[in-house]
Amino acid sequence: MSDEQRVLRTLLDRDEILELTARYNRTWDDGAFDDWVATWTDTGSFVLPGAPATVGAPALDRMVRAMASVGFVHLTMNHEIVVDRDAAHQTCAALLGTRDPSRAEGTSRWLTTGRYHDQLQRTGSGWRFQERRFVPDATLRALPKWW
Amino acid sequence: MSDEQRVLRTLLDRDEILELTARYNRTWDDGAFDDWVATWTDTGSFVLPGAPATVGAPALDRMVRAMASVGFVHLTMNHEIVVDRDAAHQTCAALLGTRDPSRAEGTSRWLTTGRYHDQLQRTGSGWRFQERRFVPDATLRALPKWW
Amino acid sequence: MSDEQRVLRTLLDRDEILELTARYNRTWDDGAFDDWVATWTDTGSFVLPGAPATVGAPALDRMVRAMASVGFVHLTMNHEIVVDRDAAHQTCAALLGTRDPSRAEGTSRWLTTGRYHDQLQRTGSGWRFQERRFVPDATLRALPKWW
Repeated sequence: MSDEQRVLRTLLDRDEILELTARYNRTWDDGAFDDWVATWTDTGSFVLPGAPATVGAPALDRMVRAMASVGFVHLTMNHEIVVDRDAAHQTCAALLGTRDPSRAEGTSRWLTTGRYHDQLQRTGSGWRFQERRFVPDATLRALPKWW
Repeated sequence: MSDEQRVLRTLLDRDEILELTARYNRTWDDGAFDDWVATWTDTGSFVLPGAPATVGAPALDRMVRAMASVGFVHLTMNHEIVVDRDAAHQTCAALLGTRDPSRAEGTSRWLTTGRYHDQLQRTGSGWRFQERRFVPDATLRALPKWW
Repeated sequence: MSDEQRVLRTLLDRDEILELTARYNRTWDDGAFDDWVATWTDTGSFVLPGAPATVGAPALDRMVRAMASVGFVHLTMNHEIVVDRDAAHQTCAALLGTRDPSRAEGTSRWLTTGRYHDQLQRTGSGWRFQERRFVPDATLRALPKWW
């Protein structure tokens, strides 16, 4: 690769990881569970303080379905991304809200800020999350127990 | 165009659409109504559930001026953008706040989260919104009626 | 430089300024004060309405340490960036929250929206803030006096 091609690759990788993270947020919030699981590698691992790690597609699928009763709204910003060939690390800020999960009533509330620490892998079908560690600022009470 | 030029064009298109959306937010919130209308094509259409579509520059201008009494703060994030030659589709998350519209008092409050579904056109003076469909999570009561 | 190299440079500059701003937010919020001061040039100036400008690394360092008792959470979005060779101007939206500064209790609250107006300089070690002017929407009461 020429230097220019290398720079182009870096810029594209960053945009693809931003779009992957946006898709993660949107598919969770809209209940598109299969599309959400597809943002992970097969051995992907979600880590939240105070709960056992959730590892692999079947466990992730169970988790996101159990969480549907909460009505999360996931927003992320201030992404810092470092790519090293076929691996990448991302840190980003999160703002979580909640809305009426049944959508019967229109509601929207602040839940918490927090931060994601992510490991990503380049796969044959694009970047995927290998590990997401989420550290919320507020103590999240009354989450459904999914494990 | 070479492959590299095509990739460069894609990267530039994405950044230009992000900047257009930021300008839309800022000009609405700061009451720069002419600059806000200029983010649309001449036949641009704003669609909000429960109201008739607002189509064309004069109608959009009336709408944004009627809304000035609300004191909106528009924030968007998690933009997903697909460009197809001179057209583009964008989905992005929104967080709307309100502030004292007269700016006499310093206030800032959460109003709602939501999502935009956008169609864009490449014009001689850059990307413009052809259609924006906004779906808020909270029911927006007491909006001024602008039609 | 060829035209392509110029476009690549513009795209890279934008991403580097986005990452600098994300680093500014994260290092302030996590109390990494030296890393936060390093996001500024040596003569950097922070301007907030109603307070004297805070100019230069020692004064900035005192300010950020005095503010640690607040427990800020800095989030920015909708960045508009114009680069002119080795200088740049950025406007971006801000959402500030607060969390328990001691982290003993998990809390997270909305504080205010606002806007940054920034001047940046390209230095031998990357882009740095030369001036940040922050205009909050809400009146910020009870800030520690740092000057």
